[in-house]
Amino acid sequence: METKRVYLNQSDMPKQWYNIAADMPTPMQPPLHPGTGQPIGPDDLAPIFPMNLIEQEVSTQRWIDIPEEVLEILAIWRPSPLTRAYNLEKFLGTPAKIYFKDESVSPSGSHKPNTAVAQAYYNKAFGIKRIATETGAGQWGSSLAMACQLLGIELKVYMVRISFEQKPYRKILMRTWGAECVASPSQDTSFGRKMQAEYPDTPGSLGIAISEAIEDTVTSKDTRYALGSVLNHVMLHQTIIGLEALKQCEMVGAYPDIVVGCCGGGSNFAGLAFPFIRDKIYGKNLRIVGVEPSACPTLTKGSFLYDFGDTAATTPLLPMHTLGHNFIPQPFHAGGLRYHGMAPLVSQLVMDNLIEPMSFNQIQTYEAGMTFARTEGIVPAPETNHAIAGAIHEALKCKETGEAKTILFNFSGHGIMDLAGYDAYMDNKLTNYEMPEEEIQAALKVLESYPKPKVS
Amino acid sequence: METKRVYLNQSDMPKQWYNIAADMPTPMQPPLHPGTGQPIGPDDLAPIFPMNLIEQEVSTQRWIDIPEEVLEILAIWRPSPLTRAYNLEKFLGTPAKIYFKDESVSPSGSHKPNTAVAQAYYNKAFGIKRIATETGAGQWGSSLAMACQLLGIELKVYMVRISFEQKPYRKILMRTWGAECVASPSQDTSFGRKMQAEYPDTPGSLGIAISEAIEDTVTSKDTRYALGSVLNHVMLHQTIIGLEALKQCEMVGAYPDIVVGCCGGGSNFAGLAFPFIRDKIYGKNLRIVGVEPSACPTLTKGSFLYDFGDTAATTPLLPMHTLGHNFIPQPFHAGGLRYHGMAPLVSQLVMDNLIEPMSFNQIQTYEAGMTFARTEGIVPAPETNHAIAGAIHEALKCKETGEAKTILFNFSGHGIMDLAGYDAYMDNKLTNYEMPEEEIQAALKVLESYPKPKVS
Repeated sequence: METKRVYLNQSDMPKQWYNIAADMPTPMQPPLHPGTGQPIGPDDLAPIFPMNLIEQEVSTQRWIDIPEEVLEILAIWRPSPLTRAYNLEKFLGTPAKIYFKDESVSPSGSHKPNTAVAQAYYNKAFGIKRIATETGAGQWGSSLAMACQLLGIELKVYMVRISFEQKPYRKILMRTWGAECVASPSQDTSFGRKMQAEYPDTPGSLGIAISEAIEDTVTSKDTRYALGSVLNHVMLHQTIIGLEALKQCEMVGAYPDIVVGCCGGGSNFAGLAFPFIRDKIYGKNLRIVGVEPSACPTLTKGSFLYDFGDTAATTPLLPMHTLGHNFIPQPFHAGGLRYHGMAPLVSQLVMDNLIEPMSFNQIQTYEAGMTFARTEGIVPAPETNHAIAGAIHEALKCKETGEAKTILFNFSGHGIMDLAGYDAYMDNKLTNYEMPEEEIQAALKVLESYPKPKVS
Repeated sequence: METKRVYLNQSDMPKQWYNIAADMPTPMQPPLHPGTGQPIGPDDLAPIFPMNLIEQEVSTQRWIDIPEEVLEILAIWRPSPLTRAYNLEKFLGTPAKIYFKDESVSPSGSHKPNTAVAQAYYNKAFGIKRIATETGAGQWGSSLAMACQLLGIELKVYMVRISFEQKPYRKILMRTWGAECVASPSQDTSFGRKMQAEYPDTPGSLGIAISEAIEDTVTSKDTRYALGSVLNHVMLHQTIIGLEALKQCEMVGAYPDIVVGCCGGGSNFAGLAFPFIRDKIYGKNLRIVGVEPSACPTLTKGSFLYDFGDTAATTPLLPMHTLGHNFIPQPFHAGGLRYHGMAPLVSQLVMDNLIEPMSFNQIQTYEAGMTFARTEGIVPAPETNHAIAGAIHEALKCKETGEAKTILFNFSGHGIMDLAGYDAYMDNKLTNYEMPEEEIQAALKVLESYPKPKVS
């Protein structure tokens, strides 16, 4: 039997995260204060984040030590396996070699705990007693609930209403791990009450939920905010994925020609891709592909602008690809990809042509997910289906050209708590939605008066 | 950082199963034909099972090769990790070392695919096109669905009604893997229609669902039946768990003083325990503890008798601990442990004092599960909570005596598709049920006229 799934011993776990800020071809442009248009400093962020995470957010140090206590908790499920998808290759009839890094083995079923544990740890180290956060599909909220439980921190989660209603098990999971979870928009914040009054039928959005969590943070005692994606320190914590993958690739004597991940806020994608992008920056020949839903086409149809991270326009302005902070995407199943913006680091790397964005519609992604579930046996999360669609797309190109390329994608999570979309797919009830160009341009109009990031 | 989670390379995966029938101190007593009271032969089972599995069922060969194609599918998630529960130990303040074998990493979240893949393989090898089966909580049905999908066999699943209604995601999971799933009792078999007519409000039971699946099997073309527990060949296929654990124990330089598993039909327990019981038979000093729910106390309060495996009394008579085939347990949350009987191999080993049975009530098991989820981070299946309750019980005894014993238990599955019980527990809505002695004796009366197994 050929080895299919490659494990890494815990003694070989990476002991440092990789900070791509040290290697960016174009230096990162700073977050701006929305009032003054001036770069914000660490002190401006202090009401929102603990200072130790703010230091990571602005750090340009290439390697940052992972604290021992964080490693010990990550060791509940890490290192995650690297698996060769032999059956998928065979089914596609492709000469390509397809590998996936399996982040679904964590207790909450996705990559999210990688940063949840780190953030809970740094908050605790800074003396914070309580965290407020938002969650889309529930992956982030439940992951942070687990992390806060293990580290002894109180947690309140604002969950996007549509997911709150469609995914009752996610709520119970958060509760089992000791967190309080409410539907957003909620009655617990003034912005939530305002949104409920104005849009009583709103499915909610990540942007709204972030606004609520930030309002909670700045109005509560000993509380800080935690974000599951977008920010530099989140990308940093996720790089353990790619660093492990590099070691595992070496173990199997393979190196990817193409690295693929799905992009919502950017963190699972960055986690796998950044260590490989480093190689690319230093001359290695490979392609890095970020896949997003065509119903929320931030990278493929949005613009690189300064925008807010939340709907209430309370965060600093971030230089990123965006569809406008008022954009509320259709309620498609991949809740984790329903975000108007994109991580500034990922956005800048797209601008620098180090990342190729790509999009698929909902039905295409479920087709890919079903194919994977029925050949490789593991049911992917709706978000992960986007990465699989990208990997299959590239593998079929290899079939045409006869090239035996090595494709590596991030299996960011399993779908066994998110099965409704599969049911709808099998009943032919899934819909596609492509955002018209004029709607996108209209959504971006609100940003006209703000400073623009430099584009070289 | 100390190593918490021990992986085994795929090249070190066991290549043979261990058949404890070769080492039983008391030879197994044969299944009997209910009409004649005579031992049944392989031909009697031929309408139900393919002959290659019947051969395994009656084999006394100690080591049986695992087919290459089975190994290749098991390699999707195996070898499973062995993890040291440091946080649980610390929380309990016990000098005991607690390890668990983590079977929750499979695509369906439990140990069930270990035998599902093997059974689907042998059916396929024998030319069978379709399988009928039953499922309780849905772990077995979904695992077999995955296996049949990967091996190209059609599958119909009769799912115990209460689970069918409470666990919609399990249905979708089976469907995603290509299986048809109906609530049992169903309208699709004459026994199902009879039960529906007599007991319109019945929550169903594994016994009823088995009867339906067997009726389907013998009345359909190219169809055989598959059982997820109880039978000798099922125990055999599960021994890969214990064989891996033995290797992993050696890697960490530990050997258990106590091995613990939860017992429904007996398969996850046997899978971990049998290779260790072999050591015990050959002189090693250790205890083997099987934990069951006090609401379905087969080993602790039932009798060792010849009984049917199903409610309709259509199977051969098996020598086993039983509560009577008419017994329909209360609808407690650990659906996989709601079975009136117990694997004959496990039963005989209990009679031979090689296994100690133990029971806990529902609230005790959820207490244990919550403790585990909040210290080790992984949410256990309701069934698995029984094994954890047993392990914690033994660890607390060590705390009293000051002994640093090594406890190994089987983490048979995760609970993130079975969270309703946790919600009820946190709302103080969980109930306990202890079966009164006279009710048990009454349930066993039906067996008076049948032959009795020998008891030495």
